[in-house]
Amino acid sequence: MSVFRGKTLKSKIVYQGSFLKIVQDLVEGREGKKHRREYILHPGASVVVAILPDGRIVMERQYRHALQQEFLELPAGKLDPGEEPLTAAQRELREETGYEAKEWTRLGVTHPCIGYSNEFIEVFLAKNLEQKGARLDEGEELEVFTLSQAELDEEIRAGRLTDAKTLSALMLYRLFKA
Amino acid sequence: MSVFRGKTLKSKIVYQGSFLKIVQDLVEGREGKKHRREYILHPGASVVVAILPDGRIVMERQYRHALQQEFLELPAGKLDPGEEPLTAAQRELREETGYEAKEWTRLGVTHPCIGYSNEFIEVFLAKNLEQKGARLDEGEELEVFTLSQAELDEEIRAGRLTDAKTLSALMLYRLFKA
Repeated sequence: MSVFRGKTLKSKIVYQGSFLKIVQDLVEGREGKKHRREYILHPGASVVVAILPDGRIVMERQYRHALQQEFLELPAGKLDPGEEPLTAAQRELREETGYEAKEWTRLGVTHPCIGYSNEFIEVFLAKNLEQKGARLDEGEELEVFTLSQAELDEEIRAGRLTDAKTLSALMLYRLFKA
Repeated sequence: MSVFRGKTLKSKIVYQGSFLKIVQDLVEGREGKKHRREYILHPGASVVVAILPDGRIVMERQYRHALQQEFLELPAGKLDPGEEPLTAAQRELREETGYEAKEWTRLGVTHPCIGYSNEFIEVFLAKNLEQKGARLDEGEELEVFTLSQAELDEEIRAGRLTDAKTLSALMLYRLFKA
């Protein structure tokens, strides 16, 4: 690994909004050259591949304002302050879909936006599911349903499943199974 | 598709930095309830799965400051103002890796950060490659190399390939081939 890393000289929060926080770093590169680097500070998140006994995968459909469209997604959510990724995965699965799982396996991690966010998303497999009833956050609206692996592949091929955390988690799951 | 969308009442740029631009919308939800939505305005990007005649895939290793680590990535880059995704894909492949391709196929699109960015990344397959010499941007540093499909799978399984645009593009490529 020989790629040059640079040295951070200064770091400051330049924007703190209702949801987003931006940090700007001054970085010293080769020959003392200085560059600015700006990125979102993110607490991290978890995403869940939850599998029913018949192999069907628990999915959500949600409207996302930033893109003004609906997305097919795996259950996921941000970590609360100090929360472990597995705990967040279990909490989000229960809150959003109503499922509790007896069997949890970590499949890996994905980084959705390496150019301008420090977000990481831990990916978990959940099996041995039991339906206990969803508890959505105030203002949260989503549909929960299940798709078989073949149906998922068809949604992806047809361009109806484009969310990168979902595609990445399904890729990890595919290699885990293989 | 029945998920509630809300109506945008107001929209303003709340941050305009060296690289990042944030917009904040006021959205009217059910029963007249008002919510704020904040997200990055992004011009969009392209990513390229470039395949050599022996099936090896052109990869890059790059240091990413937001996460303070190196990433294995497919060649990719932002659209210039008014630029078509295919043109950006061809330009970035040439600039970063030196390859020109005679055969281009669109594999789909992925959305890396649906919670807080309007970024889309168009995914292209490039074949029939010819090495013409890279032309990196000022300050851009990266290593270019190739991996077989089996080597790529091993990097993913080992947790050394976590970039979501790359995982998503490889997922689209895998389904395209199947």
